[in-house]
Amino acid sequence: MHTLTIVGVGLIGGSIGLAAKNRRLFRRIRGVGRDASSLERARAKGAIDEIHLNLNDALPDSDVVVFCTPVGRIAEQILDAAARCAPHTLLTDAGSTKGTIVRAVEDRLPDGAWFVGSHPLAGSEKRGPEFADANLFANRWTVVTRTSRTCEPALERALQFWQGLGSRVTVMDPEEHDRALAITSHLPHLLASTLAGVLPEPLMKLAATGFRDTTRIAAGDAALWTAIFQHNRDALLSALELFQHHLDDYRAGLENQDWPGVERLLTQAKKVRDALGS
Amino acid sequence: MHTLTIVGVGLIGGSIGLAAKNRRLFRRIRGVGRDASSLERARAKGAIDEIHLNLNDALPDSDVVVFCTPVGRIAEQILDAAARCAPHTLLTDAGSTKGTIVRAVEDRLPDGAWFVGSHPLAGSEKRGPEFADANLFANRWTVVTRTSRTCEPALERALQFWQGLGSRVTVMDPEEHDRALAITSHLPHLLASTLAGVLPEPLMKLAATGFRDTTRIAAGDAALWTAIFQHNRDALLSALELFQHHLDDYRAGLENQDWPGVERLLTQAKKVRDALGS
Repeated sequence: MHTLTIVGVGLIGGSIGLAAKNRRLFRRIRGVGRDASSLERARAKGAIDEIHLNLNDALPDSDVVVFCTPVGRIAEQILDAAARCAPHTLLTDAGSTKGTIVRAVEDRLPDGAWFVGSHPLAGSEKRGPEFADANLFANRWTVVTRTSRTCEPALERALQFWQGLGSRVTVMDPEEHDRALAITSHLPHLLASTLAGVLPEPLMKLAATGFRDTTRIAAGDAALWTAIFQHNRDALLSALELFQHHLDDYRAGLENQDWPGVERLLTQAKKVRDALGS
Repeated sequence: MHTLTIVGVGLIGGSIGLAAKNRRLFRRIRGVGRDASSLERARAKGAIDEIHLNLNDALPDSDVVVFCTPVGRIAEQILDAAARCAPHTLLTDAGSTKGTIVRAVEDRLPDGAWFVGSHPLAGSEKRGPEFADANLFANRWTVVTRTSRTCEPALERALQFWQGLGSRVTVMDPEEHDRALAITSHLPHLLASTLAGVLPEPLMKLAATGFRDTTRIAAGDAALWTAIFQHNRDALLSALELFQHHLDDYRAGLENQDWPGVERLLTQAKKVRDALGS
């Protein structure tokens, strides 16, 4: 593969660029964005070779175009690109939700255009190319989506692309992805934010490692996460219901002073957390 | 001060020993416990000089005796020691709850015995002297409790002791401590455990950094945390109610698709988390 185009060169886009450079996956890496100074910092860091403020200028000869923009913009940008790019250009993305994006794209995708939804499960509450990391995807999982309309050679190229960046890959239906990520990512964000929101200012100095770990992701960008919640509302509400039932079990244990019952719940949780590893 | 006795030489007790050694606060440090091999590892690590399997043998000439045992055992152990130790021996502890312990001790404390409750806000989900760290208390806060029955010279010595280990100190009423820690420590533990408990096994590989951070403390010891919840049940239930109201606001926002409202909640949470720092 010769040319990679990264649309949105922040933490994720920048990390894709650095990982592709380090592993020599492409001869040329183009960065596309609206903020020239941010793109300049990404180039200075070595994440991209070329700067483009206009997506159209960056499409010719691209083998892969990866969209690392906020979830609310991805579908439109992919459809714009699909109408203009050469056949067999793989269009993919790094959005945290998949159902809404994949449906919106596939409903209007021109015949023969190659689109495959992706979501690398890597990231941070930080933003910007300054925090890009060539090893961000190493040994992490990337979900690549398949639907009845997915073109198999496009899927193969998407798998190769993410594996080339060091990621492990798994193929899922977009809705299945969203139900899973509602539990593993969107619900934790909701809870971390809720917990951060109840901390009264005078108690800040008493918030030690446990509070800090548990709320770390609440530092994520509020607009980005609102869009994620909006895309995945139904699955997030279901995940929240599951959590609420379990929380009610703890509350009942405390109210009834059922300490063996509380210890059983904590023991089961510890087993899960120990199995996850650090 | 000449002799420090540490009862329970795990992560916290071992860190007290290492910090006291590094800062040359005492000439001699005694470790007391039931597990000779664990005490041997603490001595090998340099956290203690002497090993005692019997508390009585370790009391003579002690200037400070600090109890780093599970919260359910601290009060009895302190009362045992108070009946036997010399006047002006400071008895203090590192327990995560204070009201139950301080009340139980003060109800039966012999006249003239020096007892001051303490809680260093430092720790980890790990256990054992292997994880002891001489800098565990550096720039962290230790709460030292004062009641109407607290003896001021004893309080002064407790403040000196924790400051000597590198900690910042703050004086609080035991009940005020428990209400605060219910929010900053016990509620986060409850939520982390609840969240870990809802993760289905097949989704483990999709649990990335966010999930891992948010649930990290759920790896803590289940029996220790059950005892903490038991000691601080009422304040924890109040903290849970506060959290539940806030969670209901998020749920209503999602159900009603009030995205500006959700973004306001996330923005407020981000402000709090940003103010906390890493």
